[in-house]
Amino acid sequence: MVLKKPAEMSQKSTDITWHAGSVTPADRHKITGNQPCVVWLTGLSGCGKSTIAMALESALIRAAHLAFVLDGDNLRHGLNRDLGFSEADRTENIRRVGEVAKLLADAHIIAICSFISPYRADRAGVRRRIEPSAFIEVFVDAPLSVCEARDPKDLYKKARANIAAGNAMSFTGLDAPYEAPSNPEVHLKTAEQSVEASVAAIMSVLVDRRVISGAGA
Amino acid sequence: MVLKKPAEMSQKSTDITWHAGSVTPADRHKITGNQPCVVWLTGLSGCGKSTIAMALESALIRAAHLAFVLDGDNLRHGLNRDLGFSEADRTENIRRVGEVAKLLADAHIIAICSFISPYRADRAGVRRRIEPSAFIEVFVDAPLSVCEARDPKDLYKKARANIAAGNAMSFTGLDAPYEAPSNPEVHLKTAEQSVEASVAAIMSVLVDRRVISGAGA
Repeated sequence: MVLKKPAEMSQKSTDITWHAGSVTPADRHKITGNQPCVVWLTGLSGCGKSTIAMALESALIRAAHLAFVLDGDNLRHGLNRDLGFSEADRTENIRRVGEVAKLLADAHIIAICSFISPYRADRAGVRRRIEPSAFIEVFVDAPLSVCEARDPKDLYKKARANIAAGNAMSFTGLDAPYEAPSNPEVHLKTAEQSVEASVAAIMSVLVDRRVISGAGA
Repeated sequence: MVLKKPAEMSQKSTDITWHAGSVTPADRHKITGNQPCVVWLTGLSGCGKSTIAMALESALIRAAHLAFVLDGDNLRHGLNRDLGFSEADRTENIRRVGEVAKLLADAHIIAICSFISPYRADRAGVRRRIEPSAFIEVFVDAPLSVCEARDPKDLYKKARANIAAGNAMSFTGLDAPYEAPSNPEVHLKTAEQSVEASVAAIMSVLVDRRVISGAGA
């Protein structure tokens, strides 16, 4: 918006100068030390998404790059607190997360998104909203049996009990589908790979994409 | 989430080290050079919100502080594209903007929000979600007659014509209410005050609140 200044408007002198709207990506890069990017972690409950997301955020920030994790903890209780777990609500949940990730990327942050995001079409929808080179889909892959054995919050246990009692739970991997990525930028197998190795694999792609410099990692 | 590692999981050595979840505000401060904060600009269409928001963002980034503007341009076409201008949709619009501003602040950015946001209760709702010292409400105040004379996008002109033709427009200041802030942190009168002076007034409060250092401004 161009503000038309009334002719009588006074121009008080101050020591602040700027050129409105002239902020460039280079200006932002000087501050954050990275190119903007969206790292999208998808996989079953218990596959290790959150642990890897937090470890990646920590590694990036220690290397002086500004990263931020979006996950169920800070989205489901805030922005998306009006949404449940029906197919339509899951789709809207992922759409909104994608839009917030885009805003974070526009602000020049590395947005790390950790969501089961079971539907391929929903993930593709987010990808379409982001610059192609700036979207990194990470398939955090572990067999259902391994995820269920970990079950850190007893979610599988409770869901199994509910399903056995005849209730529909829409629990991904049990009575709701998970559509695995067919061509992710990174494919992690967390039953075989350590958290450290998983983070290193993502960092390597961030360097290849010139999101961060190799020296910083 | 604590990932239970199977005993057989290999620990591949890498040169990346971190402590999961140990990212502190101080770590983020080292990168962005500021404390997080939400600057909320409210006022009639044409009052000068967007111009001041862009000028403030530019001044902050040139002083090496990471700021980002949320406004109708990047919200209404993305995250909030499913919302119209009914009272309920305006309330949901502002709720979502507030939640995104909170996420930006959690990432340690200065979020500059530029929205008419005509309802006092909606603005109070956002304020409640943010740390008290980190929420700065800015009343961008100009008489309706001045805003209507500026009318940079002919919005008033079109709305007046529609209302004259018998259509309800829900246009703030014409056939929808604007509830002015009763106790804003900053009160700008843009019919009398330059953009430069308006930005300086906000910067001064940011220094007082220790969001930025005085030297940086």
